[in-house]
Amino acid sequence: SRSLNLAVIPGDGIGQEVVAEGLKVLSAVLPQDVKLETKEYDFGARRYHATGETLTDADLDELKRHDAILLGAIGDPSVPSGILERGFLLKLRFAFDHHVNLRPSKLLPGVATPLAGEPQIDFVVVREGTEGPYTGNGGTIRKGTPHEVATEVSVNTAFGVERVVRDAFARAQARPRKKLTLVHKNNVLTFAGHLWTNVFNKVAEEYPEVTTDYIHVDAATIYLVTDPARFDVIVTDNLFGDIITDLAAAVSGGIGVAASGNINPGREFPSMFEPVHGSAPDIAGQGKADPSATVLSVALLLRHLGHDAEATRIEDAVSADLAERVGLPARSTSEIGDALAARVAG
Amino acid sequence: SRSLNLAVIPGDGIGQEVVAEGLKVLSAVLPQDVKLETKEYDFGARRYHATGETLTDADLDELKRHDAILLGAIGDPSVPSGILERGFLLKLRFAFDHHVNLRPSKLLPGVATPLAGEPQIDFVVVREGTEGPYTGNGGTIRKGTPHEVATEVSVNTAFGVERVVRDAFARAQARPRKKLTLVHKNNVLTFAGHLWTNVFNKVAEEYPEVTTDYIHVDAATIYLVTDPARFDVIVTDNLFGDIITDLAAAVSGGIGVAASGNINPGREFPSMFEPVHGSAPDIAGQGKADPSATVLSVALLLRHLGHDAEATRIEDAVSADLAERVGLPARSTSEIGDALAARVAG
Ligand SMILES: CC(C)[C@H](C(=O)O)[C@@H](O)C(=O)O
Ligand SMILES: CC(C)[C@H](C(=O)O)[C@@H](O)C(=O)O
Repeated sequence: SRSLNLAVIPGDGIGQEVVAEGLKVLSAVLPQDVKLETKEYDFGARRYHATGETLTDADLDELKRHDAILLGAIGDPSVPSGILERGFLLKLRFAFDHHVNLRPSKLLPGVATPLAGEPQIDFVVVREGTEGPYTGNGGTIRKGTPHEVATEVSVNTAFGVERVVRDAFARAQARPRKKLTLVHKNNVLTFAGHLWTNVFNKVAEEYPEVTTDYIHVDAATIYLVTDPARFDVIVTDNLFGDIITDLAAAVSGGIGVAASGNINPGREFPSMFEPVHGSAPDIAGQGKADPSATVLSVALLLRHLGHDAEATRIEDAVSADLAERVGLPARSTSEIGDALAARVAG
Repeated sequence: SRSLNLAVIPGDGIGQEVVAEGLKVLSAVLPQDVKLETKEYDFGARRYHATGETLTDADLDELKRHDAILLGAIGDPSVPSGILERGFLLKLRFAFDHHVNLRPSKLLPGVATPLAGEPQIDFVVVREGTEGPYTGNGGTIRKGTPHEVATEVSVNTAFGVERVVRDAFARAQARPRKKLTLVHKNNVLTFAGHLWTNVFNKVAEEYPEVTTDYIHVDAATIYLVTDPARFDVIVTDNLFGDIITDLAAAVSGGIGVAASGNINPGREFPSMFEPVHGSAPDIAGQGKADPSATVLSVALLLRHLGHDAEATRIEDAVSADLAERVGLPARSTSEIGDALAARVAG
């Protein structure tokens, strides 16, 4: 008998609501012989206010025992900027070596886009997750004085770049178009840029079937709005990946449907799956949040653990649900979850 | 009698063609009593190939004597990435302390945008030009080995941040909407983020009439495609400014009409004005390039030097020309230049 042992972190704001629907759809899609066990954790703003803790070593030891982690959203205006981001989200990515931050963008039929015309959008961004300017290196001297100097150090290693570039090539090779684009800013950030470009070109030799190209990050934002069809797989640095995936989500239907995986491909640590959207405190508790992004994150989770058929069933269900929404009155978070659960079970 | 003593750097590719039209319009707009003197410099790929030089100390001494610099475009595929960017463009920005990198975005009537609907776009980005990850700090160890480590250091000083933030507040105060948005990533880049945020909030106290807000750079890319009307003036870091101004140019009519100024507000050194677009080697020499972005850069140049009425006449001419283009056959670079020169003279 098989089992799926999941750590669930609803988090803040709409996190609670969307995670409930993600679990509903997960239960509905799993085959009878897979035993689903979930354990909920209370990380986020409430825990921080109550205890001052964001994520302790003991927490990490507990989380480590699960097959994967499903997260709703972390963040609340009552917590100063940076505390939960660095103290929870990034701490978890670094502690569990989530070096592949996977963010697919697909404009599904019936979904509105801010772009004119009928753009074809179907690409995936492989964002490095454990290096770059996200390492917390840097510091401040003479804080608060007219002579303050603050630095941020982007750290890039051959080890770290090569493993994510290899992951991206493998993903490109497995897709019909077999195209991989490196996004960086190697004309200005020449130290990191040379490393990324050299590693990319070296690994490319092992993938003769994959077409490659290179675009500066600033130009990439132009293509994302004028010709998103040019992209198949993109591999990029942690910060550039952060920026272009929000834009990618915006043009391919909005953050209501954007899913992401913080993946440790070797499975030494559990991977973490979460919608790209935040906790949206303005609509929290009102049943207005669209759980689709969380449900699609559950699909990424299932695919990561080898349940490909179930992942595809979820993706098809979301796709069908979005297509049939057009022109109908808005449904609540749980109504959408119910509809998706019915589809995947059906 | 007044004079305008201009250093002209046509540069590479279409740079030559568009600068010729920029100068044509400049001559046509200037009052009779302003004596225009221009001196052309051959910086760019050809000079680099011929001499190995990009920009020497002697060059800087020469350039220093002018009131301003007009640049077409620098860059050619025959030169390895980074050489001309770091060795010429950035060297000039740093040497002449161009700390205000000014990039207006205005969607003019009749101009095509990739966005659906009829977005209202009229904002200006004040990008810091001499700090951040552009300083060239950082380095590489164990280059080319599996143990390579490459770093890039973003350097931010209270001095550097405050002067550009002050410039942005003054610009916001002078505009009808009086709104200033700080774009950063202060939840992750906490050292630099705190500095930017604190300086911004401190200067804000001196501008009670200016409405302020803060957005993370990733979210800013979303707003630029879903709600660009929310922006009036944006102030941001060098790298974030690079990225969002390309996106801003794309949504507001493309880089064919995007102008920029690399400004030293105190006029200790000449400021440099250039179109946002590059040298476009694929269409160079064919008379296909749109000189409008260069002509609009000439308007920024004139305004910087106090010729406001002439700047406005150029902007109105470009605006009228773009509006009347709709549905007409394409004109050559010099035909557009002629039309604009006729309008400003008229
Ligand atoms: C919340 C923040 C730390 C995070 C990031 O910058 O990675 C978010 O923007 C994301 O994209 O997951
Ligand atoms: C060419 C490059 C050095 C430059 C930059 O990154 O600033 C360009 O992209 C720009 O925006 O002016």
